[in-house]
Amino acid sequence: MRKAFHHDLDRVTEDLVEMTRLAGSAISRATTALLDADLVLAESVIAADADLDDLRERLDFQAIDLLARQQPVATDLRMVVTAMRMSSDLERMGDLARHVAKIARLRYPSSAVPAEFRAVVVDMGRVAESIVLKAGAIIAARDVEGARTIEADDDAMDDLHRLFFERIAASDWSHGTETAVDLTLLSRYYERFADHAVSVGHRVIYLVTGHYDPDAEGSHEDTEDVLLPTRR
Amino acid sequence: MRKAFHHDLDRVTEDLVEMTRLAGSAISRATTALLDADLVLAESVIAADADLDDLRERLDFQAIDLLARQQPVATDLRMVVTAMRMSSDLERMGDLARHVAKIARLRYPSSAVPAEFRAVVVDMGRVAESIVLKAGAIIAARDVEGARTIEADDDAMDDLHRLFFERIAASDWSHGTETAVDLTLLSRYYERFADHAVSVGHRVIYLVTGHYDPDAEGSHEDTEDVLLPTRR
Repeated sequence: MRKAFHHDLDRVTEDLVEMTRLAGSAISRATTALLDADLVLAESVIAADADLDDLRERLDFQAIDLLARQQPVATDLRMVVTAMRMSSDLERMGDLARHVAKIARLRYPSSAVPAEFRAVVVDMGRVAESIVLKAGAIIAARDVEGARTIEADDDAMDDLHRLFFERIAASDWSHGTETAVDLTLLSRYYERFADHAVSVGHRVIYLVTGHYDPDAEGSHEDTEDVLLPTRR
Repeated sequence: MRKAFHHDLDRVTEDLVEMTRLAGSAISRATTALLDADLVLAESVIAADADLDDLRERLDFQAIDLLARQQPVATDLRMVVTAMRMSSDLERMGDLARHVAKIARLRYPSSAVPAEFRAVVVDMGRVAESIVLKAGAIIAARDVEGARTIEADDDAMDDLHRLFFERIAASDWSHGTETAVDLTLLSRYYERFADHAVSVGHRVIYLVTGHYDPDAEGSHEDTEDVLLPTRR
């Protein structure tokens, strides 16, 4: 029975890693759709999110089934519970990528991103893709050391997020408030995407060490609320 | 053993209802702090979020302990798993209320909300408080019929959210982009707050009926992406 159980757990891990791949692909393609005002690509990102939702559903069914049939304890129990939480993070990351794609679609044939914001959006897309792929490698290898460094990757996103808001709130803004709204939401989506990747990293630490602390277990605290520019 | 188990489950339910109360109080007080530029109140909302985090932590420990010791199956298992998901929604609602309070604190001694947005913010705060208290009553009574109506309450929030964005993107905007950024984030926080309450309602339906569908089980889809005003 334990052999079968561990076979099932391996399958769960594979599904989680596959979810990180899908989320990485989604945010990368959504960023391209946004920058190139590519409607077809945006539509494909929006449609593909259903795959991530299906995978999450399958994974959660499997996890509940494992709990019911195998009644795991200790580390095995922790693995199943943690997998369900990671799948929730990863599904949400897919939603956020889809939101980016929807803004691309909404503003087509224009791009929602003014020229001087393109470079920052490119960087946000790169950081987002890289952090979720890193999360996948961490899950696959149960890599606690890697997981401990993922917060530093998120710092890069927070810096970009801060830069974004500072530029939007600058006094010489000339793009209208509709674009300000779009960019505020976009920046928030990328930042939350990275937060969920950090949360996945923390969950791997919990999984392996059993060490519970609010940061390692709860959702990673999102940071936008300390990043708003102060009133000048 | 089953009697002890059901006693423990009742305790979990009580904790969930208590979490809805704390989240309701937080969003109500955060709204007041925001509108009155009340720094002391804003600080107290920010500090009180730790109580919600603690309660979530306790509840999750209890749930994992129940899984390990009692190895529930069928409805009992569903109850434990669903409780962990609801606690995650409710903790996140507390975070969102804290975000509102942090914007209030950031803009003190000014109010982040211009005069003509006050009425909409008042309404958003009322809908948010009412929907989380409703979610609490639904949890306490396992009220599937009530849970089926909670989406309609969320529609009121979506209408307010849409109104907000339309007004921000209007061509006669005179409040600067910093205020546009603040209001965009605020509107998003209230809207996500209500989404999580809907998600709690869906989870109660799943808990009682065992009926799994993506809407009833996954996080409630947030709706902001269809609400952005179209480019004029």
